[in-house]
Amino acid sequence: MPPTNPAPPPSSFSLRNKVLRALWGVVCTILFRPSPKFAHGWRRLLLRVFGARIERGAVIHPSVKIWAPWNLAMAKDSCLGPAVDCYNVAPIELGRRATVSQYSLLCAATHDFTSLQLPLVTSPITIQDFAWVCADVFVGPGVTVGEGAVVGARSSVYKNVEPWTVVAGNPARFMKARILGDADEHQRPHTHVE
Amino acid sequence: MPPTNPAPPPSSFSLRNKVLRALWGVVCTILFRPSPKFAHGWRRLLLRVFGARIERGAVIHPSVKIWAPWNLAMAKDSCLGPAVDCYNVAPIELGRRATVSQYSLLCAATHDFTSLQLPLVTSPITIQDFAWVCADVFVGPGVTVGEGAVVGARSSVYKNVEPWTVVAGNPARFMKARILGDADEHQRPHTHVE
Amino acid sequence: MPPTNPAPPPSSFSLRNKVLRALWGVVCTILFRPSPKFAHGWRRLLLRVFGARIERGAVIHPSVKIWAPWNLAMAKDSCLGPAVDCYNVAPIELGRRATVSQYSLLCAATHDFTSLQLPLVTSPITIQDFAWVCADVFVGPGVTVGEGAVVGARSSVYKNVEPWTVVAGNPARFMKARILGDADEHQRPHTHVE
Repeated sequence: MPPTNPAPPPSSFSLRNKVLRALWGVVCTILFRPSPKFAHGWRRLLLRVFGARIERGAVIHPSVKIWAPWNLAMAKDSCLGPAVDCYNVAPIELGRRATVSQYSLLCAATHDFTSLQLPLVTSPITIQDFAWVCADVFVGPGVTVGEGAVVGARSSVYKNVEPWTVVAGNPARFMKARILGDADEHQRPHTHVE
Repeated sequence: MPPTNPAPPPSSFSLRNKVLRALWGVVCTILFRPSPKFAHGWRRLLLRVFGARIERGAVIHPSVKIWAPWNLAMAKDSCLGPAVDCYNVAPIELGRRATVSQYSLLCAATHDFTSLQLPLVTSPITIQDFAWVCADVFVGPGVTVGEGAVVGARSSVYKNVEPWTVVAGNPARFMKARILGDADEHQRPHTHVE
Repeated sequence: MPPTNPAPPPSSFSLRNKVLRALWGVVCTILFRPSPKFAHGWRRLLLRVFGARIERGAVIHPSVKIWAPWNLAMAKDSCLGPAVDCYNVAPIELGRRATVSQYSLLCAATHDFTSLQLPLVTSPITIQDFAWVCADVFVGPGVTVGEGAVVGARSSVYKNVEPWTVVAGNPARFMKARILGDADEHQRPHTHVE
């Protein structure tokens, strides 16, 4: 059989999606990126204009990359730290007080490599309440980081992380339970009771 | 024996190399980096002017870092994704439809640490046809990523990767064979027959 | 027990610290970051003005991020390479000829996750004489990389590294002793004799 040279795949995105992202790119470059660090309200406003659902107190550093604001949901007092890349081709959601530290990559898309066309495959990411994704962590598509979980610095997470556990490594593995100090244990949130 | 303080090593690069890189740095800053995302032809042109061998259809994102354009060869429809660092102190070559995803570092140089002078040691990198180097992967000096191989997101590769295999981890290890779907399997390229 | 929503923690930093960092941020953006690569003396000067202790011959690339210059000490001929992030919330010290290669993150702070407040915890980092921290390495808070040690590219270091050893991986593990060639072995520095 003669060798073949399959054509590159067609774009995965609609014209509307592309135009909105181009527009967001311009707004991001001119109004978001150069904003002073303390102007969290201003950046929340810009993101909301582009369809993000962002509650009060959420912190988004000016160096954060957001692929599609309309696919971002951040609950009260959640945080995206410096140089975090929120590659939200599918929705990405942060719960209350969820924190993502510097340089982490939340990667909500991959490609199906059983095809030479490498078609895009997307899947949402959820970082639940009180979870902490430490510095320079990779979170893959479809992953839920459970409530109160801690993902150690430089870990790579391809599967769900159980609530109130500490995981680390590449791939990330269970290290220990997250035990809160006495002062916090009795005020630990009981999400499921709400 | 008295302690010694060996002198720092002399520069590893010729004046010509330094001048060309400085010139490329200026051109990159002014003409390459700010170019709009869709201007792939323009960036191919700039790289070719500096000696890169780049075939048609190759995609180079404006945020890609290229150390020496004259050490870059990209075959038809290959791709260097956003923020890829192509540290091509030695030649780096991408085959047809080879894809390198965002944040990956192709690192064609190291230092000989059996000497306190840490002399530079360089070795070429090849990413063969249809291979996919996923997001935030490290590829070390001298490595060949074989035809159709997939290097999983966040992996670190220090040795050659066999064709049509999937590897992952740090260091990257064999995970499974890359099996193409029926639609693709019978049109799988047979490079060696060509 | 009703669910609770603990208040975010108060800032960990004094007003003086914040003002000085804001000032350094401005100076960095205007005078440090755009300086040409060869202007090492100029960047040493700027850092010294902000309280860094930097000996002659030290190399700091213009893309290096320094959180607090007053917490940085660099001995003679030490080097911080391109895009290194020196997150020196606690002091970070490099010994003579210590080298930190591109993209590495020296991270002198973490958070106590036994509290929902995630209070900041800082701890100094030391890279001793002749050590080499290779590309894209993570060095955690409190770590000492011993004299002459080599931390392989893409490793993550959470514990001290023994002198004259080579470590690699995530977490980094002992690979082998660092043996110098004949030419260097007999001039190997004997720091503790000095």
